[in-house]
Amino acid sequence: MENWINAEERTEDIVISSRIRLARNLKHTPFPNKLEEKEARENIDTVEAAFNINEKNRAKFKTVRLWENSPSVARSYFEKHLISANLIKGYTKTAFLLSKDETVSVMINEEDHIRLQCITKGLNLREAFHEADRLDSELEQYLEYAFDEKFGYLTVCPTNLGTGLRASVMIHLPALTMNNEITSLLKGLTQVGMTIRGLYGEGSSADGNMYQISNQITLGVSEEEILSNLEAVVSQVIDQEIRAREVLKTKYYYELLDKIYRALGVLKNAVILSLKECLELLSYVRMGVEMSIINDINKKLLNNLLVEIQPASLQVKVDKKLSGKDIDIERAKLVREVLR
Amino acid sequence: MENWINAEERTEDIVISSRIRLARNLKHTPFPNKLEEKEARENIDTVEAAFNINEKNRAKFKTVRLWENSPSVARSYFEKHLISANLIKGYTKTAFLLSKDETVSVMINEEDHIRLQCITKGLNLREAFHEADRLDSELEQYLEYAFDEKFGYLTVCPTNLGTGLRASVMIHLPALTMNNEITSLLKGLTQVGMTIRGLYGEGSSADGNMYQISNQITLGVSEEEILSNLEAVVSQVIDQEIRAREVLKTKYYYELLDKIYRALGVLKNAVILSLKECLELLSYVRMGVEMSIINDINKKLLNNLLVEIQPASLQVKVDKKLSGKDIDIERAKLVREVLR
Repeated sequence: MENWINAEERTEDIVISSRIRLARNLKHTPFPNKLEEKEARENIDTVEAAFNINEKNRAKFKTVRLWENSPSVARSYFEKHLISANLIKGYTKTAFLLSKDETVSVMINEEDHIRLQCITKGLNLREAFHEADRLDSELEQYLEYAFDEKFGYLTVCPTNLGTGLRASVMIHLPALTMNNEITSLLKGLTQVGMTIRGLYGEGSSADGNMYQISNQITLGVSEEEILSNLEAVVSQVIDQEIRAREVLKTKYYYELLDKIYRALGVLKNAVILSLKECLELLSYVRMGVEMSIINDINKKLLNNLLVEIQPASLQVKVDKKLSGKDIDIERAKLVREVLR
Repeated sequence: MENWINAEERTEDIVISSRIRLARNLKHTPFPNKLEEKEARENIDTVEAAFNINEKNRAKFKTVRLWENSPSVARSYFEKHLISANLIKGYTKTAFLLSKDETVSVMINEEDHIRLQCITKGLNLREAFHEADRLDSELEQYLEYAFDEKFGYLTVCPTNLGTGLRASVMIHLPALTMNNEITSLLKGLTQVGMTIRGLYGEGSSADGNMYQISNQITLGVSEEEILSNLEAVVSQVIDQEIRAREVLKTKYYYELLDKIYRALGVLKNAVILSLKECLELLSYVRMGVEMSIINDINKKLLNNLLVEIQPASLQVKVDKKLSGKDIDIERAKLVREVLR
């Protein structure tokens, strides 16, 4: 797998990253919300030990115990989509195993005991699933999972029962947003069993015209069905976005250029930049790159910015605690430097 | 006098140009609105001949007969503040004498037979008046003006009676506009006998935070009083604007920088620029230059842009008739090229 942030993506890709998440629980251990701090930490050691029996894993992964890190550092992992907000919330009892290339993370004591996540660049659900499945099978050799013949893998929340699989893609839909088709599109996706979320999952807004599309149902369908359903839906969405971009290019060419270059001009010059505005402007620049209108900026740089402009990542980078306006000033400074 | 557009102004100047206009009529000739085309054109010849008796004038001035020029060319003189909209309106009967350095213009058959105008850079009313007075005295040797012992110089509109003198300055007030003090300031100026107009005189809007302040009263006061009153008022306005800029710099430094640099970023990158937006953005850049925040742009360049972005000047420059959106595209292109 390739890290989505640093991969040299094809410029025309509309899907930014693909993610597979498996939810698993241990048979003889109470669910994480029932664990005391001591038991929870023991559970972390158990999972870590099982995972590290394979020497390759030991060499490739590190364990991050949340309570050993500052809130900013913890949050910066979240901003890279490597851990969940929930894992941070329970920081006295949680940890995660992280691969050096930051494509695999195994959250321990999130809502479930184990949340194994593989994230890769572009539309690549199969590759991510293959890796997740491999690591899951490996773990299953050493850990006894809570499994029921009828319900499959048991999870805290019934929406994860069965396969425990959530497959999702992060997709960039500026043209469908600009032409206002996005609302009915998203509604349609919900009707065919998809969940749509913003840039940072549940409850987050779709800033920067970024959407996460994932399967809603995990029970009573095979992993294969989940993946091919999602692939089919995403392919359709990609087609619609491409068509919308073609219309923009044909009918509103100068307006399109204006939007893209103004965004670039503001990013290169602003002195105060809110996260929301910055994401929106980066979205137009990204569209410009994806449509080969802007040719001297690559998507690796834009992906890195997508993460680096987030508040915690920004503070970790400048190694300073910042508040309110200072964050917006530091963000603008970073963006100016990167784009210059 | 120095041409206000091309003069190397001191960066800190807030007054862009000073203008003196004298209204005069010939004693035995009906007012312009009563003249047939033939008589009007004869009148042009009469004034031109009188003016050109002085050989220096003949060498330094050219005569532009409005009917011999395209509407765009005529309009481009207006956009440089060299002639009035009224002169263009009566184009079959009007003309003007224009000095090569474009600091002096003598409009013939505008509302009055003669409208002698001197325009110079910065706050320089005395210099402009001195030149206007000199040329007026010269003309008076050869032409018999309509003059009344009691009412002074007779003019078509009673608001110009007496001295026939209108003195005005073009002033740039972005900070007073930003802090919303401008409305009460302008109201106050009206109360002390000043007229406030936009960038292009009567009825025009104050786009780009540019205001023309001029004397309302021409009768019953001496030329000296008119000039010193206006100077006093303008000095006060300058002080207020400077104070407002200091407050911005002290209390809202980053917001100020943000406003200025974003404006520059948009001007350097936009693909479609309306006149109104362009003037507003140029105003912030000008403020940046005037406050020594931007140091690599000079005001000569900004003054030239102020004129060149106007629709007729733009069409004359690219030698093409443009309409609607095409003007906004051409304007953006020009601005990008000039600021690059």
